[in-house]
Amino acid sequence: MYKKKELLEKISNIFKKHKFGSKEAKISAEVIINAELVGAPSHGVSRLKMYCDRIKKKLINPKAKINIKKISKSISLVNANNSIGFVAADIGIKQAISNAKKTGIGLVGVRNSGHYGLSSYFIQKAINKNLIAICFTNAPPAIAPYGAKKSLFGTNPIAFGFPSFKKKPFIFDSSMSKINRGKIRVAAKLGKKIPYGVALDKNGNITTNAKKALEGVQLPMGDFRGSGLAWVVDILSGVMTGSAHSGKVKDPFDDFSGPQNIGHLFIVFKSNLFNKRFKNEINKNIKTVKRLPKLKGVTEIKYPGQKKYERYQNNLNKNIYLSKKVAKELEILLRE
Amino acid sequence: MYKKKELLEKISNIFKKHKFGSKEAKISAEVIINAELVGAPSHGVSRLKMYCDRIKKKLINPKAKINIKKISKSISLVNANNSIGFVAADIGIKQAISNAKKTGIGLVGVRNSGHYGLSSYFIQKAINKNLIAICFTNAPPAIAPYGAKKSLFGTNPIAFGFPSFKKKPFIFDSSMSKINRGKIRVAAKLGKKIPYGVALDKNGNITTNAKKALEGVQLPMGDFRGSGLAWVVDILSGVMTGSAHSGKVKDPFDDFSGPQNIGHLFIVFKSNLFNKRFKNEINKNIKTVKRLPKLKGVTEIKYPGQKKYERYQNNLNKNIYLSKKVAKELEILLRE
Repeated sequence: MYKKKELLEKISNIFKKHKFGSKEAKISAEVIINAELVGAPSHGVSRLKMYCDRIKKKLINPKAKINIKKISKSISLVNANNSIGFVAADIGIKQAISNAKKTGIGLVGVRNSGHYGLSSYFIQKAINKNLIAICFTNAPPAIAPYGAKKSLFGTNPIAFGFPSFKKKPFIFDSSMSKINRGKIRVAAKLGKKIPYGVALDKNGNITTNAKKALEGVQLPMGDFRGSGLAWVVDILSGVMTGSAHSGKVKDPFDDFSGPQNIGHLFIVFKSNLFNKRFKNEINKNIKTVKRLPKLKGVTEIKYPGQKKYERYQNNLNKNIYLSKKVAKELEILLRE
Repeated sequence: MYKKKELLEKISNIFKKHKFGSKEAKISAEVIINAELVGAPSHGVSRLKMYCDRIKKKLINPKAKINIKKISKSISLVNANNSIGFVAADIGIKQAISNAKKTGIGLVGVRNSGHYGLSSYFIQKAINKNLIAICFTNAPPAIAPYGAKKSLFGTNPIAFGFPSFKKKPFIFDSSMSKINRGKIRVAAKLGKKIPYGVALDKNGNITTNAKKALEGVQLPMGDFRGSGLAWVVDILSGVMTGSAHSGKVKDPFDDFSGPQNIGHLFIVFKSNLFNKRFKNEINKNIKTVKRLPKLKGVTEIKYPGQKKYERYQNNLNKNIYLSKKVAKELEILLRE
């Protein structure tokens, strides 16, 4: 059990010991803590050792000079130069927000980046400024293209966020796989099983063994539709930004042969461009959906992001629980 | 069997008899014929009678004054004023293309529009200019929000298109339901069954009876992810543009109590903003995927849009076959 402030400081110190500046260490620690607070530990402290391993092997550059190139008033390209993904994405979304505030719309590509955690963390920054945000990022091979028996596309999340109620953000943030790869990694780490029907082993048989699933293929949500969307994300975030694509993004946990070269694409625009009453209307929209007759056993129809937000609110003033294994990793990293 | 040119003229003449200008009649006929050529008859001539019915009942205005409001150099709002969706979407995508050519990116909302057929038809126009296009449109209730037992979201397609090989467009165009509502409509019209597991009847039981499925609920692709994406599309195309949303888009076939008030959102940008070699890279990407080992029985891994394009090429110089029922409707409309 850790107090939030204490854990934030510990993680921040670990990054600083790995030559991060204090600003970069703080941003990175915040994204990791946020994942714990919203109930996505697969994207939280359990990844800290991996990040440190990659820094030690010079695959993540703690002192990367991140370059922002202005293409037009609305459009910018961020070259992350192998910085940690958190910092690159933070700069990317902030640039997109700044462009959108000036011109109504911001389009920002980020190249040579790395895994940045949850898209919803960055989407939230746009929502806080009354902006709509769409974000795409590619990832290491996890999903087979439709008809293929080998993984190539990442879980390649797509995220959309909208300002709505004052404090309740509508954020759809979903990988294109049936379940997050991070969840499978945590299961593998803790020796737990994964649900039936979400992954195949390397021989093409359905498996509930997390380790075998990681060696095999994850199944896309919605079959060929999910596989097609994962392909779209690979093009938007990989091909378009000039980053790695078509299976060349390196797995951060297993592949230390080079930097990840992940790409991100952020599209941000003002929510009230066409409709001054956007917030009122989205509130009406959500209320209408919530009033629908429910299926048996359902007590509330929730909008995308609501559960994460509720967990966040609920966890905000509580201690953070880390699994034994993850806590041990943290303590080792602190003593190194 | 109809010659393409002959059918185009017949449909165009039917629209002209319904007081369309020749330009509007031609655009509308072209979108309908295109659906037949790409092998999507559910969006083709089978809908012609519905459009004519709505024109007769003054729910589609053949003489609508479509207004384009410039919000900024990149952003425009089209008020379709209840024109037919084809014409409104054609103006919308052309405006988005024009904005993107000038500033790198175009964002166009269309309000007070109607069903516009296949998104891929409009996406193709952007691809022809070397632009990337994303498009969202809402639709009448067909999918239940996750946890609800009543339909509210439309099948709400999302489409992404990329320029790639000279003539082979990569177009992902998919409804958020397990199958297109149009396919269920055609099955209902022709008395055919629909696949198992794609729809429930009004009592919540799985049905393969197309008519019962239309009265019931279509299931979203990818369960809560598909339902969430359909919600996102309702907000982007409905709420944001100031059009109908949250179940208020009227069913064009069954509900003659008012115009549809559908919204569309088009995002178009230059493909080479960040990477001058975009086309080379996307071609390499597609080639890499196609070279993957295939599942048993699969002879070729196809990219999104490839099948439609192949059918289009294959059908281009052939006669167009219409089902007896649809051909009869056409002949009646011609004689009216």
